[in-house]
Amino acid sequence: MGRCAAETMRENDFIEWLREAAGGELDAGLVPVGPGDDCAVVLVGGERLCVSVDQLIDGVHVEAARDGAEAFGRKAMARALSDVAAMAAAPLAAVASLALPRGFSRDDAEAIHRGRRAVSDAFGCPVVGGDVAATDGPLACSVTVLGRPDGIEPVLRAGARVGDAICATGAFGGAWLTARHLQFAPRIAEARAIASRAALHAMIDASDGLAMDLSRVCRASGVGAEVDAAAVPVAPDAAAGRAIDPLAAALGDGEDYELLFTVAPEACEALLADPPCAVAITRIGRIVAGAGLTLVGAGGRREPLAPTGWEHGT
Amino acid sequence: MGRCAAETMRENDFIEWLREAAGGELDAGLVPVGPGDDCAVVLVGGERLCVSVDQLIDGVHVEAARDGAEAFGRKAMARALSDVAAMAAAPLAAVASLALPRGFSRDDAEAIHRGRRAVSDAFGCPVVGGDVAATDGPLACSVTVLGRPDGIEPVLRAGARVGDAICATGAFGGAWLTARHLQFAPRIAEARAIASRAALHAMIDASDGLAMDLSRVCRASGVGAEVDAAAVPVAPDAAAGRAIDPLAAALGDGEDYELLFTVAPEACEALLADPPCAVAITRIGRIVAGAGLTLVGAGGRREPLAPTGWEHGT
Repeated sequence: MGRCAAETMRENDFIEWLREAAGGELDAGLVPVGPGDDCAVVLVGGERLCVSVDQLIDGVHVEAARDGAEAFGRKAMARALSDVAAMAAAPLAAVASLALPRGFSRDDAEAIHRGRRAVSDAFGCPVVGGDVAATDGPLACSVTVLGRPDGIEPVLRAGARVGDAICATGAFGGAWLTARHLQFAPRIAEARAIASRAALHAMIDASDGLAMDLSRVCRASGVGAEVDAAAVPVAPDAAAGRAIDPLAAALGDGEDYELLFTVAPEACEALLADPPCAVAITRIGRIVAGAGLTLVGAGGRREPLAPTGWEHGT
Repeated sequence: MGRCAAETMRENDFIEWLREAAGGELDAGLVPVGPGDDCAVVLVGGERLCVSVDQLIDGVHVEAARDGAEAFGRKAMARALSDVAAMAAAPLAAVASLALPRGFSRDDAEAIHRGRRAVSDAFGCPVVGGDVAATDGPLACSVTVLGRPDGIEPVLRAGARVGDAICATGAFGGAWLTARHLQFAPRIAEARAIASRAALHAMIDASDGLAMDLSRVCRASGVGAEVDAAAVPVAPDAAAGRAIDPLAAALGDGEDYELLFTVAPEACEALLADPPCAVAITRIGRIVAGAGLTLVGAGGRREPLAPTGWEHGT
């Protein structure tokens, strides 16, 4: 998330270490995709199962006192589903653990359930089990979602190729400061519609910021990316009252839960000419050889795009 | 857990409500077992998949400052595996979310991983994905384990029949006050050895206390139970320095992570005559018609056994 980039960077380091530490633990025959993608992929009964876990912590990912318990439950479920969307998988079922602060009201606990349930129902992902415990800390919920490829090859982060077009769904910026980070719809149907029409090379859901999440695709794929400043779909309320360049907000804020994907240029043209979903698809740049992100501005001016969000240059 | 019975009872109420609220959400064809058992069972690729989530919170289920980060990681994984043991399933893979207090040291984060990994390796359950976030609250970890029946019918809580023998593995009491709640081995191999030799009718892992967990089997099965006081396997250090009847500790303490199962009396005799595992199996009572638990003492004296632990009568 944009508002705690320093923490996120520290987490990224530890996650990177965890990923390396998992080396040797996994049997590639049973676990075709291990830690480091939006979902892991595990073989069950000859079928590939996508598995992802995501946690929502009050005060970090939501402000429950301001936003309400129902919004908390809603977002906990929607965030987890967004990871399944990023693989173009179909949700199957979920389990959830819930840590309730001591003295938490039963009404609020039921409201969390209602919010969660509304999203589960809308996206066909029943919660089949869970765990509830009391905590001295903040309200927290961890949701594990199982998904099935169901005829569509899981799209990984690692497949971006030099020359690919980079595309995004929807618009970016300001989500945390508006209600959008609470109300977003995980792009399950859109991901499946797009992936069933075009051979996607790589995909991720943009939860930590367009630039940061695109940099993850690049690192996993061993490539770099150029982003066309004028092409980035900036949400109308991206600045959200801040004295900030809306483009910087779009690149760095996070919490958008839109899809970022890469695809061969011709396939991109076909998608743009005949969109497979109602949500807008925008071509925002291209995959290039090398590493890191470059922002291409007016007149072809190029500047490095930091994966923690972009500060407008001179 | 024994040490916070009031919280546990309140959680039980909410969990019961959640279970009822899930009614109508689940397609029994896709989800043969929903919320309320040790694992849910979901159909994937024609195979049944057992899924369970369990969370470990510092200050509730462990005291990380005293017990160490490695013990925290160890217990987080072992607790989750214990739920898979309770179905007699074989672990397949896990995902974990980890909430790290701000300022948590990298060394301690790596120690959590080492403890988790030692258990994952010992029980063949690799962690294939995860989520790490910073929290203002206590250290917390939520582990979701996937398991496969692998030739053994999943054993539910709901199958206990009047006349069944009630059996337990290992010994009970004082686990929280000793190191046993940190060092226990989830009874995966034992559950599978027992279930492959005898048709178990019901099973649960005793994490919240022998009496409470047995009462859950009874409630799920619509039966009652009689427990023979003299037969309960009491751990040598069950009192753990407290002025408490060791039997009361064995019945009420919790954190034992032993198996409780019910089986036809003849099958029980066969198990006891030729034990399928090195861990002791003890017959502790019988399933009866009705509801609730009865403790049968010296001379056949009978008294109600409260599911929150037993206070010795006059």
